[in-house]
Amino acid sequence: MINDSEAPVTPVEAFEPPYYVAVFTTVRTQEQSGYRETNARMEDLVKDIPGYLGIDHAQTPGGLGITVGYFRDGEALAQWRGNAEHRAAQQRGRDEWYESYTLHVAKVERSHGFRRA
Amino acid sequence: MINDSEAPVTPVEAFEPPYYVAVFTTVRTQEQSGYRETNARMEDLVKDIPGYLGIDHAQTPGGLGITVGYFRDGEALAQWRGNAEHRAAQQRGRDEWYESYTLHVAKVERSHGFRRA
Repeated sequence: MINDSEAPVTPVEAFEPPYYVAVFTTVRTQEQSGYRETNARMEDLVKDIPGYLGIDHAQTPGGLGITVGYFRDGEALAQWRGNAEHRAAQQRGRDEWYESYTLHVAKVERSHGFRRA
Repeated sequence: MINDSEAPVTPVEAFEPPYYVAVFTTVRTQEQSGYRETNARMEDLVKDIPGYLGIDHAQTPGGLGITVGYFRDGEALAQWRGNAEHRAAQQRGRDEWYESYTLHVAKVERSHGFRRA
């Protein structure tokens, strides 16, 4: 699991553009049975996609969740989008786990990072 | 303040592409004096930028923060990037508040949303 609170946290780095971000913003329902397991499984699965670069996740308790997936190109995104197990998880998300969500898929034009010395 | 835990939360909607996302991922230091006030001020300021569409924010307690700003075009982004008060806040962020951060600026190619009936 990412963002396990015991693990040190660092944001995914700035890659050389162009690359893609998939920004997934969510509000969850009260019905979260199976969510954690499925989420962990998705985080494992996506790592096998050629061109997968990383994932960031933040969750305000009782509020908004944001997951950002980073991919090298449209091919990588298409492969993840078409993954059968991922599609089943998305359907279950709409049926049970999400009150609302938005997905924005975007091509990165510039990026930079900062790390304290 | 956005994501005040008493307020109902909904993700920013899916706009008609193209538009821009500025994805800002952060890990904060122990030194957070003045952060909340400055953050609230920035959220007010950015609303005055023509072409500003919205902002999403999520914060894992003790972990990663993700802020996503939505802008209609590059002109809006440039205006926000050049804002003097914003630049001063960024400098203070590097000096005091941020252990590390990454900024990814990207042009949205597709988007969609879901709201529970």
